[in-house]
Amino acid sequence: MTEFTTRRRVEFADTDQGGIMHFSRYFVFMETAEHLFLESLGTSVALELDGHRIGWPRVSATCDYRRPARFGETIEIRVRVRRKGEKSVTYDFTFTRGGEELATGQMVSVCCVLDAPEGLRAIPIPEAVARRLDGP
Amino acid sequence: MTEFTTRRRVEFADTDQGGIMHFSRYFVFMETAEHLFLESLGTSVALELDGHRIGWPRVSATCDYRRPARFGETIEIRVRVRRKGEKSVTYDFTFTRGGEELATGQMVSVCCVLDAPEGLRAIPIPEAVARRLDGP
Amino acid sequence: MTEFTTRRRVEFADTDQGGIMHFSRYFVFMETAEHLFLESLGTSVALELDGHRIGWPRVSATCDYRRPARFGETIEIRVRVRRKGEKSVTYDFTFTRGGEELATGQMVSVCCVLDAPEGLRAIPIPEAVARRLDGP
Amino acid sequence: MTEFTTRRRVEFADTDQGGIMHFSRYFVFMETAEHLFLESLGTSVALELDGHRIGWPRVSATCDYRRPARFGETIEIRVRVRRKGEKSVTYDFTFTRGGEELATGQMVSVCCVLDAPEGLRAIPIPEAVARRLDGP
Repeated sequence: MTEFTTRRRVEFADTDQGGIMHFSRYFVFMETAEHLFLESLGTSVALELDGHRIGWPRVSATCDYRRPARFGETIEIRVRVRRKGEKSVTYDFTFTRGGEELATGQMVSVCCVLDAPEGLRAIPIPEAVARRLDGP
Repeated sequence: MTEFTTRRRVEFADTDQGGIMHFSRYFVFMETAEHLFLESLGTSVALELDGHRIGWPRVSATCDYRRPARFGETIEIRVRVRRKGEKSVTYDFTFTRGGEELATGQMVSVCCVLDAPEGLRAIPIPEAVARRLDGP
Repeated sequence: MTEFTTRRRVEFADTDQGGIMHFSRYFVFMETAEHLFLESLGTSVALELDGHRIGWPRVSATCDYRRPARFGETIEIRVRVRRKGEKSVTYDFTFTRGGEELATGQMVSVCCVLDAPEGLRAIPIPEAVARRLDGP
Repeated sequence: MTEFTTRRRVEFADTDQGGIMHFSRYFVFMETAEHLFLESLGTSVALELDGHRIGWPRVSATCDYRRPARFGETIEIRVRVRRKGEKSVTYDFTFTRGGEELATGQMVSVCCVLDAPEGLRAIPIPEAVARRLDGP
């Protein structure tokens, strides 16, 4: 299965008064890692399809925190496709700092038309994207 | 088991370009609901104990999203203690809008000394707090 | 000129590792105060006009910080219309805590069509809204 | 005067339902640019001095928005020291995208002891830092 790793530093605005990265920010880190992963495959998180805006709202997001991340530290975020469904993708994430595991996460993103009359509508993953998620 | 409900409105800054509340913001809503819940019990999320700062870092956070929340909507967030351990509390959260379920979540918060020499150190939940979590 | 006051508490996620509310969060507080103010006038920040989405992007935002705000504190935010132009509104904001001034801010919001072919396009403030901004 | 440029991409979580980067996020971009600038000078935003934690809370922050920034775009942020006072630094920021100016900003950061008994206490900028701010 396809795998991708990105790195970023913990910013001051990511921290809270506990002196560590706020737990909600890991989800932003995961989302952006997912987007960079899709880009690395030659696709994107914000597509147009037949004049409709396509996006990937999450139906599920989880994070397990083992060690805190602190301001200024460089974190590696590894993305892996755990499961590719007809309309959704399940991603595994691993946060490490210099090889030491900080946290693991999981997200399920569903391919949706964002401007459907009823609001969001799940659709089958466009084939060009689905093929890329299978990896080389 | 003790239960608590709070309400808040989705702010503009909570939304993303998909036109819905960003999925990471549910975790902030959960955290603040947890804090208000602790307050309602007569305790607090930011304690001092024997000159040390006590906090509740999360070891786990999950959210399952069913329907999107939108700017300006009033959301109810219900907190319930699912399990009280020696050093941690597991909370269940339910997000509703006018009775309709939007999302459910779960968090495990661990009682920690925040300024321990080694960083964070888990400690038994102070008895006065533990008793209150059991409810009336 | 019209004036409006709202109150909110500083959340844990609003703080940073300096132990105070992060300076960028004041801008979110201002924006939401602006929205509540517009609501109190019977209008809204997110309008539809002739099938177009109308919004109020900022062209300018300023904040001067005098005293820090801390987790759990209740802050009063006062909004005042300083100037109503043809296409924009200039707001003054005052942050206080129990009467003590914490910060002052200013924002200039421009009435825009959000889905214009060229992106954003400034338009004259719709008359029904403009009239309300003048106050009673 | 010393000058520094950094680049970053607009993340999905930086956007709002107007389809553009939320105006409050520019302040986070400025802050992080300031930190990277200080690092590039061989100093840091989070110092220890005689056992005290030193930081740079802002007393003022301003941003003027000319053109919106959108998801996925790469933004250049230029930092320039406009004025170095005894206890504070005034920074100018310019946001560009491929040479086109998007926004300009300004921040005044004050060198403070963060754990003073009275809360924050402004102190003269440590000489080693002050010298570096003057540039080569």
